[in-house]
Amino acid sequence: FQSETEKKDEIGVATGLAWTANGGDITTIEVLTFEGKGNLQITGQIGDVMQESAQAALSFIKSKAKQLNLKNDFFEKIDIHVHVPEGAVPKDGPSAGITLAVALISAVTEIPVKKDIAMTGEITLRGHVLPVGGIREKVLAANRIGIKTILIPEKNIKDLVELPEQVRNVLEIIPVNHMDQVIFHTFGTETPKRKESPTRETKKKPEKGNEPVLN
Amino acid sequence: FQSETEKKDEIGVATGLAWTANGGDITTIEVLTFEGKGNLQITGQIGDVMQESAQAALSFIKSKAKQLNLKNDFFEKIDIHVHVPEGAVPKDGPSAGITLAVALISAVTEIPVKKDIAMTGEITLRGHVLPVGGIREKVLAANRIGIKTILIPEKNIKDLVELPEQVRNVLEIIPVNHMDQVIFHTFGTETPKRKESPTRETKKKPEKGNEPVLN
Amino acid sequence: FQSETEKKDEIGVATGLAWTANGGDITTIEVLTFEGKGNLQITGQIGDVMQESAQAALSFIKSKAKQLNLKNDFFEKIDIHVHVPEGAVPKDGPSAGITLAVALISAVTEIPVKKDIAMTGEITLRGHVLPVGGIREKVLAANRIGIKTILIPEKNIKDLVELPEQVRNVLEIIPVNHMDQVIFHTFGTETPKRKESPTRETKKKPEKGNEPVLN
Amino acid sequence: FQSETEKKDEIGVATGLAWTANGGDITTIEVLTFEGKGNLQITGQIGDVMQESAQAALSFIKSKAKQLNLKNDFFEKIDIHVHVPEGAVPKDGPSAGITLAVALISAVTEIPVKKDIAMTGEITLRGHVLPVGGIREKVLAANRIGIKTILIPEKNIKDLVELPEQVRNVLEIIPVNHMDQVIFHTFGTETPKRKESPTRETKKKPEKGNEPVLN
Amino acid sequence: FQSETEKKDEIGVATGLAWTANGGDITTIEVLTFEGKGNLQITGQIGDVMQESAQAALSFIKSKAKQLNLKNDFFEKIDIHVHVPEGAVPKDGPSAGITLAVALISAVTEIPVKKDIAMTGEITLRGHVLPVGGIREKVLAANRIGIKTILIPEKNIKDLVELPEQVRNVLEIIPVNHMDQVIFHTFGTETPKRKESPTRETKKKPEKGNEPVLN
Amino acid sequence: FQSETEKKDEIGVATGLAWTANGGDITTIEVLTFEGKGNLQITGQIGDVMQESAQAALSFIKSKAKQLNLKNDFFEKIDIHVHVPEGAVPKDGPSAGITLAVALISAVTEIPVKKDIAMTGEITLRGHVLPVGGIREKVLAANRIGIKTILIPEKNIKDLVELPEQVRNVLEIIPVNHMDQVIFHTFGTETPKRKESPTRETKKKPEKGNEPVLN
Ligand SMILES: [Ca+2]
Ligand SMILES: [Ca+2]
Ligand SMILES: [Ca+2]
Ligand SMILES: [Ca+2]
Ligand SMILES: [Ca+2]
Ligand SMILES: [Ca+2]
Ligand SMILES: [Ca+2]
Ligand SMILES: [Ca+2]
Ligand SMILES: [Ca+2]
Ligand SMILES: [Ca+2]
Ligand SMILES: [Ca+2]
Ligand SMILES: [Ca+2]
Repeated sequence: FQSETEKKDEIGVATGLAWTANGGDITTIEVLTFEGKGNLQITGQIGDVMQESAQAALSFIKSKAKQLNLKNDFFEKIDIHVHVPEGAVPKDGPSAGITLAVALISAVTEIPVKKDIAMTGEITLRGHVLPVGGIREKVLAANRIGIKTILIPEKNIKDLVELPEQVRNVLEIIPVNHMDQVIFHTFGTETPKRKESPTRETKKKPEKGNEPVLN
Repeated sequence: FQSETEKKDEIGVATGLAWTANGGDITTIEVLTFEGKGNLQITGQIGDVMQESAQAALSFIKSKAKQLNLKNDFFEKIDIHVHVPEGAVPKDGPSAGITLAVALISAVTEIPVKKDIAMTGEITLRGHVLPVGGIREKVLAANRIGIKTILIPEKNIKDLVELPEQVRNVLEIIPVNHMDQVIFHTFGTETPKRKESPTRETKKKPEKGNEPVLN
Repeated sequence: FQSETEKKDEIGVATGLAWTANGGDITTIEVLTFEGKGNLQITGQIGDVMQESAQAALSFIKSKAKQLNLKNDFFEKIDIHVHVPEGAVPKDGPSAGITLAVALISAVTEIPVKKDIAMTGEITLRGHVLPVGGIREKVLAANRIGIKTILIPEKNIKDLVELPEQVRNVLEIIPVNHMDQVIFHTFGTETPKRKESPTRETKKKPEKGNEPVLN
Repeated sequence: FQSETEKKDEIGVATGLAWTANGGDITTIEVLTFEGKGNLQITGQIGDVMQESAQAALSFIKSKAKQLNLKNDFFEKIDIHVHVPEGAVPKDGPSAGITLAVALISAVTEIPVKKDIAMTGEITLRGHVLPVGGIREKVLAANRIGIKTILIPEKNIKDLVELPEQVRNVLEIIPVNHMDQVIFHTFGTETPKRKESPTRETKKKPEKGNEPVLN
Repeated sequence: FQSETEKKDEIGVATGLAWTANGGDITTIEVLTFEGKGNLQITGQIGDVMQESAQAALSFIKSKAKQLNLKNDFFEKIDIHVHVPEGAVPKDGPSAGITLAVALISAVTEIPVKKDIAMTGEITLRGHVLPVGGIREKVLAANRIGIKTILIPEKNIKDLVELPEQVRNVLEIIPVNHMDQVIFHTFGTETPKRKESPTRETKKKPEKGNEPVLN
Repeated sequence: FQSETEKKDEIGVATGLAWTANGGDITTIEVLTFEGKGNLQITGQIGDVMQESAQAALSFIKSKAKQLNLKNDFFEKIDIHVHVPEGAVPKDGPSAGITLAVALISAVTEIPVKKDIAMTGEITLRGHVLPVGGIREKVLAANRIGIKTILIPEKNIKDLVELPEQVRNVLEIIPVNHMDQVIFHTFGTETPKRKESPTRETKKKPEKGNEPVLN
């Protein structure tokens, strides 16, 4: 199952816990950004509620642009594509909210998400983490697939009582109630920041041919 | 229930009273603004009538831009995101009108809404407050959750007669018929105004690099 | 019923007569304009036919821009919001056409509509007033609510024969067949004109900071 | 029936013959143009086929812009509103094509359509006139309402045999197979042309305030 | 049937063979171009598949812009209207692909299509001609209406065996498998080219009034 | 079957393996690019899932723009048309993902795809290749049609066990798990690059006629 759990750190990728008709499963959220005009595209047979979750996650991140060291017009000059494989499997619900936010933060800061961590929780515009359903099934699936650490909403702690002793010993289960905590556990810092890239900027300039002549 | 009643003052947040199949409940309205092109986005499984309420609330506020100390092109340079958690629960109806207006005013003036106050009432473009349904259930829910003060439409006073003596003693119930009164009770002033931020403007300029050189 | 009949003169507001499943009623049409890009927004659960009425009313007014003393690009620099409370009650039909036109003229000229007057009638692009249904019920409702004067399409005069003597004595019923007459009776003049506001224009300039320096 | 048959010459108005469940009737097509961005709006509960007819009629006219003495960017700087009262009555079908074209030509050239003339016929992009249904009913309705002259597609001549002698004596029925003929009969000339308005252009300039100062 | 078979050469017109519930028929495709912003409009009650055919035909032609002697930004400065009379008759299917392409090439090069030729065949983006259905019915209809030459997909040759001897003697049936052949047979040359019109360009300039003054 | 298997190398074309109700088949993906504004158009009766596949394939390629030697604003200045003949046959599913990516890479780099190769596999935003259904039927169809080499997802190797010995001897079946491998096998290099065309750029300039005259 190595490929499904995404062992490698990668930029713009986060692992969610999903609750399906067949029990718990994990979901990979992929985010790419490229030059554009501020559009957000979401693919992977995503339902209305999950689309709204992605929009809420993006707005939360826009409101933290300064802390993430993103320039004023950062979001107006890129397009964002959020994709959730497998492309033919319908997905919905609010519980991917914090996973979407983590993948988006990773994509815009270009900082990879920590390895072997998965998460579930609804996000609000202010970054609060709301409880979700299917916790028991999600945790069992994470354990089965080899995840080491999972983040769950604080209000879902009560749902853990039924888990087998063995699972609780292997898995680190971290309750969270705000994105600040989610960010700390997924990036290893409370303040992930995009690095300025003055070199790249300098390289680009000649292509535009608008260099001021200093003489 | 501390997190649900939003004890902390926060900018861009207001608490409404909702009437659902399960009785009364409270609803948090969240508003974020960020650099943009004048778009309004509403998420949280919001029905047609409630979407139109949000648009009416926004237009009312646009017509008061000068009084709120917002610049001429203020609304053309931002995008506004209104979200109503929980994201998977469908919401509709006109009764969140004044709550939407209060959250929007808080967001654009950057002034927090007073604590422990909830409200219900349809808004018109001119700021009149129209009566709504489910007053008894809404008031009982507010009391149960720990709200101190609620605003209801003046024309709904007649619906209060059936409330238990005990509830009427604990809760301050304020009838309103215009947004002027709603604003006074939620912001503590009839004239909330956005502070000018000349410092920030000055800081931004160097980023644009278009300063005329005077020599 | 003071609030429903809108006793106060107000800008951008006109009172229509509606014909519902429950008999006649009055409808308030609210119009706000603000800086924008030429968009028209119509809210209040408005059906297709009534939306087209609003568009026809607006086009009629655009064709009279010069007579209303509106500048060449007046409509390209504003957005217009038409709202018809109560927001949850579906409304439709062509009979609000002239009321929509009156509310729009009031909003763009900033001249209030006369008090205690209500109206019904379909509008055409050229300002003709076409007959509508439910005249008897509408007139009775206007009388009941305290309206003093109502405008009805000339071709609906035949529908008045069944009204009680007492109603015809109290109410002034004015037949109209063109918007010229509607405008005269609602604004007290055949030529309502927006006042030039050179002072305001002068005040705006410094905000843009593009003043040529004459030295 | 004076108002229905539009006895007065008016700009942007043409009279069509319609075939309804209740037999033949006449339809007034109204066209307004005003400053805009090249948009076409069609109201009056118009079905898909009739909307496409209006678009075909407009494209035909755009292809004749030079002959109509319209400037190169004439259509990019105006919006066009086509309305067909009565606003609540659904209308459809291709047979209003030539009437739509005549009303549009009248609106853009500012030349009124001749009096007492009505017409029916599908239009193609190249201005051909195709046959339509309900000719007998349409002609009888035109006669009943007081129309003097009607234009019908040449291929519909065969449908006239069943008309009463009396109707054929009173009505002038003119078969047409191309818009050239339709234009000749409705405008009294094969080449209606918009008058240049140099005076108006000169008056506009001071409003823009961008005149270079030559000194 | 003279008008249906379009005896005259005309620009922007091509004749297709259609297969309907009533047997074979011919379809005229009309294309107009005029100043615009790169929009494609398709009218005539056209179904999804046929709309996609028109888009594929247009893309094929855009990819051949240089060979057709069209300027770099040719397609960005025009709007294209494709109409298929009779406007009320629903049409669909991929078999008008090559006819759409021929009408579009004629419109953009301003070169008329040869007389008395009709065609059927699906087009691909690279100009390949794919087989279609109803060949026997289409050929019989072409013969009945007086068409002299028809183009059919090479892979449909096998469908011709059932045609009567007499039809095969009168009609010239040309199999094609690429648009190169279709273009040769419909324009009489493999390389139709739009004529430069320097005179017209020169005439336009004074209208814009932005001529630099050289003194 | 020569035309179906596309024996010739061509730019912007790739061959997929499809799984239909009638068993396996091959699908040609065609891509054209031309001057435009960054739009993506997909035709050929393509379902939602396959449309999302095309968008994911395009985003993957945009994220590799630098490696493909595409300029910064390359994708903003072109429109892309993806077409999948036969135009009337509905197509859907995620399994054309890598074929879409290969056809797109060929179109934007102007490098033809190798001959006699077909492929199947879902693509993710990061270029991973996910398993698909119908492998046995697809391979048998490729063999029947004369394909020499096919690429299948690594995770589908297990589906090959049931193939006849004879098929496994004739066909080269290459398992892939990332687009890097797909690109190597379809272009013969891991790094296909668009050639700079300075000559063409130089030729274009005179067409714009805005050359500054230095004298
Ligand atoms: Ca899975
Ligand atoms: Ca859930
Ligand atoms: Ca709740
Ligand atoms: Ca309610
Ligand atoms: Ca009422
Ligand atoms: Ca009515
Ligand atoms: Ca009538
Ligand atoms: Ca008809
Ligand atoms: Ca026919
Ligand atoms: Ca066919
Ligand atoms: Ca096939
Ligand atoms: Ca599949």
